[in-house]
Amino acid sequence: MSPATDHINTYARGKALSEAVNPGMEDALRGRYDALVPGLSETIVDVAYGKFYARDGVDEKTRLLATIAALTALGGQTRPQLKINIASALSVGATPQEISEIIFQMTLYGGFPAMINALNAAIEVFDEQGVAA
Amino acid sequence: MSPATDHINTYARGKALSEAVNPGMEDALRGRYDALVPGLSETIVDVAYGKFYARDGVDEKTRLLATIAALTALGGQTRPQLKINIASALSVGATPQEISEIIFQMTLYGGFPAMINALNAAIEVFDEQGVAA
Amino acid sequence: MSPATDHINTYARGKALSEAVNPGMEDALRGRYDALVPGLSETIVDVAYGKFYARDGVDEKTRLLATIAALTALGGQTRPQLKINIASALSVGATPQEISEIIFQMTLYGGFPAMINALNAAIEVFDEQGVAA
Amino acid sequence: MSPATDHINTYARGKALSEAVNPGMEDALRGRYDALVPGLSETIVDVAYGKFYARDGVDEKTRLLATIAALTALGGQTRPQLKINIASALSVGATPQEISEIIFQMTLYGGFPAMINALNAAIEVFDEQGVAA
Amino acid sequence: MSPATDHINTYARGKALSEAVNPGMEDALRGRYDALVPGLSETIVDVAYGKFYARDGVDEKTRLLATIAALTALGGQTRPQLKINIASALSVGATPQEISEIIFQMTLYGGFPAMINALNAAIEVFDEQGVAA
Amino acid sequence: MSPATDHINTYARGKALSEAVNPGMEDALRGRYDALVPGLSETIVDVAYGKFYARDGVDEKTRLLATIAALTALGGQTRPQLKINIASALSVGATPQEISEIIFQMTLYGGFPAMINALNAAIEVFDEQGVAA
Repeated sequence: MSPATDHINTYARGKALSEAVNPGMEDALRGRYDALVPGLSETIVDVAYGKFYARDGVDEKTRLLATIAALTALGGQTRPQLKINIASALSVGATPQEISEIIFQMTLYGGFPAMINALNAAIEVFDEQGVAA
Repeated sequence: MSPATDHINTYARGKALSEAVNPGMEDALRGRYDALVPGLSETIVDVAYGKFYARDGVDEKTRLLATIAALTALGGQTRPQLKINIASALSVGATPQEISEIIFQMTLYGGFPAMINALNAAIEVFDEQGVAA
Repeated sequence: MSPATDHINTYARGKALSEAVNPGMEDALRGRYDALVPGLSETIVDVAYGKFYARDGVDEKTRLLATIAALTALGGQTRPQLKINIASALSVGATPQEISEIIFQMTLYGGFPAMINALNAAIEVFDEQGVAA
Repeated sequence: MSPATDHINTYARGKALSEAVNPGMEDALRGRYDALVPGLSETIVDVAYGKFYARDGVDEKTRLLATIAALTALGGQTRPQLKINIASALSVGATPQEISEIIFQMTLYGGFPAMINALNAAIEVFDEQGVAA
Repeated sequence: MSPATDHINTYARGKALSEAVNPGMEDALRGRYDALVPGLSETIVDVAYGKFYARDGVDEKTRLLATIAALTALGGQTRPQLKINIASALSVGATPQEISEIIFQMTLYGGFPAMINALNAAIEVFDEQGVAA
Repeated sequence: MSPATDHINTYARGKALSEAVNPGMEDALRGRYDALVPGLSETIVDVAYGKFYARDGVDEKTRLLATIAALTALGGQTRPQLKINIASALSVGATPQEISEIIFQMTLYGGFPAMINALNAAIEVFDEQGVAA
């Protein structure tokens, strides 16, 4: 059974990946959301990390650049998540230039305003992390 | 002056790239659209190809996977362009599996319907090109 | 003539409903917007409340949960309106858990970022109203 | 009372405008939709035509070009309505070139795919009406 | 452990629900997609059905009306999924009138074109199933 | 060669237009973005201003009202750009009433929340500029 099709172990794989990328995330989500939506934190770890990001076939850096592209094109409504994914992309070796190039390219699909807004979000992340442009 | 900032030569670079990827494209666009919108075909070659896709800093395959991600998340309204970019991604060495993985990942950002619709578009391209999944 | 097709009385019905749900709303809208867009306040009362929300056929709670679903999936751009509709849903008897469940379900159609952003808006409303989750 | 704020007479004004632009529209809508949604046809005449398009302050041609701009940027999902508004714009004196220019400009806000899809819709209308580009 | 937080058994619950609503769905998805995206069919059963639709707290009919609302507001790009959810809503007891009312209400959030397009999709489903409007 | 098809001189025309409407813009963009995305400032001047706004066929005021319509319908994610275009529309002679009418009309295509959010942005611009409504 391939990892992707093993519905039991996706939680374990997702947990390992989420703790590596974002330590303490599930606990933080549980504290904020689970009283309202029981199981939300576990669902995110299991689904987003275990069933999608932990899949084989494409490296993590390309997955994150693709995510940044999509969130840019979708527009500023996903700004917090865009910043998280930009930080994650930096953490797996993407450079500020690569991230910025992908965002800039999205002008073609999401228009200039969406591009500029995403680039502003990226600059905030680069500044927060002291990454030279 | 870096290639990206040389507004004179972006047309020449865009023309070379568009003819390599999609021979005859500018002529086809000119025949269909330029009587109505003078210069449309040249603008697409100059802007989309010359000022964006021909830039340095990110390889063409990653650029195309990022585009596929964005068009998937934006939804089925960009189906014709999604199919063109899937074909282009195949032509620069992306595999059907890589393309499909990136589309599948977009479930997290565009939802299940957008993902399934994009995967159906990809399957059409793979079938048209006789590419085994 | 059914209420829905009586274009004269939709204003009266809309006024009664809007005052019940949100006392003083038309006056507030008139003060802020009507100098610029004559009739805006009356149009909102007549159209949104009189011609849509006051219709028969579906109870108000289901209408409001459907609205919350749509605004969640549309993304954070409608955050102020999302909060107003969450407050209205509470006022007609929806529980925080029901509202949160509907928002959580929208992960499937609007993606995880849209869901989390909407849930954060809901938590703000619940906190402002002192509603225990 | 200004026309825009007179909720009784917006139906009459909307009816006059809709019959001028699109004779028989309310009857066609009634036959198709009102059994399912009582009053839908009257609501469209009263609201869309009476409370919005029949307002003073901006001429009809500019209103229609603005609508074409919005529907282009929103993407192909509104193709049938885009075609109707392009036909209406022609009927109030907009030229194919003006319509095409406005669509082309939307590249900046909706991206190239949205622009090309809208231009294709416009060409269909121009061809159906035998309007030379 | 509440059902929603038990990542092992969501597949079983999702399988039971998906087979009840749409017999043979997982097999059909597996045959079409899993060679390309290993585990896609299982992920849909586990996630969409097991981790979202099978949750407690809101009845299935309200969940489906909320989904119809969201897909209407998101626009025609999700037409195939809209039709599936309309059929599902009928199967759990929603009437054509209730479904149509929810769609009509979305005029307020997604605009008239999105509403009309969704209502046309609903009429197709009602006609296919011989359900009198 | 028509202006629109002369890829060499679009930069010069775009520069003249952008300096007239927004003095110092290219320098400001260069200072903020070009280290990260070489050539971004020049691309915006050349493309947005030179290849789109400086085209013949539609007057600048209509172009700006069309842009305001599109940004309204696209929703609050483009608020900064909406405000810039509202200011530009004022500067070429559009009145607050005309701008507000176009925004109000977008209720029909983007829904009430998008309209109200855009009108709030417009009021901010009118207040900043001391323009009486």
